[in-house]
Amino acid sequence: MRRRLGSMDDGTAARAMLAVAMEEARAGLAEGGIPIGAALFGPDGELLGRGRNRRVQDGDPSMHAETAAFRAAGRLRGYGRTTMVTTLSPCWYCSGLVRQFGIGRVVVGEAVTFSGGHGRLAEHGVSVTVLDDPECVALMRDFIAARPDLWAEDIGE
Amino acid sequence: MRRRLGSMDDGTAARAMLAVAMEEARAGLAEGGIPIGAALFGPDGELLGRGRNRRVQDGDPSMHAETAAFRAAGRLRGYGRTTMVTTLSPCWYCSGLVRQFGIGRVVVGEAVTFSGGHGRLAEHGVSVTVLDDPECVALMRDFIAARPDLWAEDIGE
Repeated sequence: MRRRLGSMDDGTAARAMLAVAMEEARAGLAEGGIPIGAALFGPDGELLGRGRNRRVQDGDPSMHAETAAFRAAGRLRGYGRTTMVTTLSPCWYCSGLVRQFGIGRVVVGEAVTFSGGHGRLAEHGVSVTVLDDPECVALMRDFIAARPDLWAEDIGE
Repeated sequence: MRRRLGSMDDGTAARAMLAVAMEEARAGLAEGGIPIGAALFGPDGELLGRGRNRRVQDGDPSMHAETAAFRAAGRLRGYGRTTMVTTLSPCWYCSGLVRQFGIGRVVVGEAVTFSGGHGRLAEHGVSVTVLDDPECVALMRDFIAARPDLWAEDIGE
């Protein structure tokens, strides 16, 4: 992943990173979970951690996709040159994670079905790219239609 | 705890809740961890979950005290009548948790050694009580003096 991402232009690299998050989201769906995935990449495009929402799988409401990816990356110092890619606009919880740890860049698969704190992060100097990816939109739209109860639970509504 | 808290005035109940968070913080210190504790209480003062920062113990940077207490409470619907008590002002990550899940009240042991997002939460309608507890202050002040590296790591500095 490192070499491949390094040789790509920015938009192509963003989509390559999103593909990893989408793999996580689809794996979550296959497990009966909430289909949101994320991954944390280092400055040279190296994958530091990847994860998916684990509310259903682990009965753990604290594991959103972004927090799962952050956890998987382990203990690190200095997130300024890292990129968090997520299939869905980060909620306030996950936006708070980005802000507190100074993650420098966020790539968002889509912000159509849910719009969290990515706009606010941009105001705080985070580089934010929203891809409006139709596959991401379809995945969440279908899920929300099928399991509105689970979706409401996951965003505290 | 439920019966005891129910019979107390508000300030006394806040201090009784803080005592649980302090037990967690001290247990964390004894384990060589970052001494921050938290607990989530229900509407009638029942303990829903308690936890402590687990960065050192589990190598898990996603487990701040508040997220650990939230996780320990398991899957719930409706946090509006719950109270999160924490020994230290919640960072942006943990403030985001409170905001996203609509936790109705936050009791903060102290905001002297670190001031996170509790003021912002109050602006968003969360009931915030800051106790300025000298034991909480001493615990963090001693820890920060002893392990500035670990403290900086935990707040992403």
